[in-house]
Amino acid sequence: MSTRLPVELAKSYRLLNHGPTVLVTSAYEGASNVMAAAWSMPLDFSPPKVAVVIDRNTLTRQLVEASGEFALNVPSRELARLTLVTGSESGREVDKFQAHDIGTFASEKIGAPLLEGCLGWLECRVIPERHVQAAYDLFLAEVVAAWADPAAFSNGHWNIEQGGKRSIHYIAGGNFFETGAAFEVEK
Amino acid sequence: MSTRLPVELAKSYRLLNHGPTVLVTSAYEGASNVMAAAWSMPLDFSPPKVAVVIDRNTLTRQLVEASGEFALNVPSRELARLTLVTGSESGREVDKFQAHDIGTFASEKIGAPLLEGCLGWLECRVIPERHVQAAYDLFLAEVVAAWADPAAFSNGHWNIEQGGKRSIHYIAGGNFFETGAAFEVEK
Repeated sequence: MSTRLPVELAKSYRLLNHGPTVLVTSAYEGASNVMAAAWSMPLDFSPPKVAVVIDRNTLTRQLVEASGEFALNVPSRELARLTLVTGSESGREVDKFQAHDIGTFASEKIGAPLLEGCLGWLECRVIPERHVQAAYDLFLAEVVAAWADPAAFSNGHWNIEQGGKRSIHYIAGGNFFETGAAFEVEK
Repeated sequence: MSTRLPVELAKSYRLLNHGPTVLVTSAYEGASNVMAAAWSMPLDFSPPKVAVVIDRNTLTRQLVEASGEFALNVPSRELARLTLVTGSESGREVDKFQAHDIGTFASEKIGAPLLEGCLGWLECRVIPERHVQAAYDLFLAEVVAAWADPAAFSNGHWNIEQGGKRSIHYIAGGNFFETGAAFEVEK
């Protein structure tokens, strides 16, 4: 089971601020799915909000629109292949959880499952904005709970330099960057 | 002068897909500004679109709303301090270009200046969506021209492993990650 601790909502944007690729999980009436999304970002600090692009042809889209909820899971490099695969398969054709033996655990505030082995998790409730959903496949949501593996992220800070696992950043065609060296600059 | 070559519009999303922090440049009627933005992402492939959060209290917001244009400049690690500084100063109080001796060159299709020393540049025209602008500080835009320093990005691919400069990913409080190792996975 993934170790996890709650992340203070006001600092939950830090799980996404550096632009990692995420896995979107969703569920509705017994159906559930997981899909990679390179296009997500924080949208506000307090209350924390996020934006994510969810293509209209996906099962995830259908589950998110029906439930009004989704979770963003921040995968480690160890999950890069899974990220690639879940970004190209359709949940309509295959049960990705079963096909790839993906462990999950329950969210606290929403129905979507959270993925074992990730570094951070954001439970999100859709802010209904039908026009941007329909015109741009763009979903805005409020973060209602957040979690992190304390080895990777604790007290509002990433612990990559202390040996925590690295997040990943998708480019195209199976190519990723891993999150690199941390550094600090002063004004 | 920055070396730069045009980037095919269909591949311009790859300048942003891995989630780098960007510098937003804008201009209107003789005024211009530059501001860091950690919250940007691609929104579509073709025509390429982007989304970026531009706070309502900034001069950039005023210039972008007046001109309907902005550019996203992808800075290298060498520009991390400038990124931090331009994200905290206000263009209403200081001419950031002059104060920090920032070199610029002209866009091809828009009025905003482009920043010397960056790795890539996206010239963008705002898609007017007044409601999301007003409610979420969120701007959607079409990419109308794109450029890259060929040492960093060429033929649609990043050249970091070949010695190209690295982009950066802001976290909080002056802390960044640099873009790390590239790797490829197969399905």
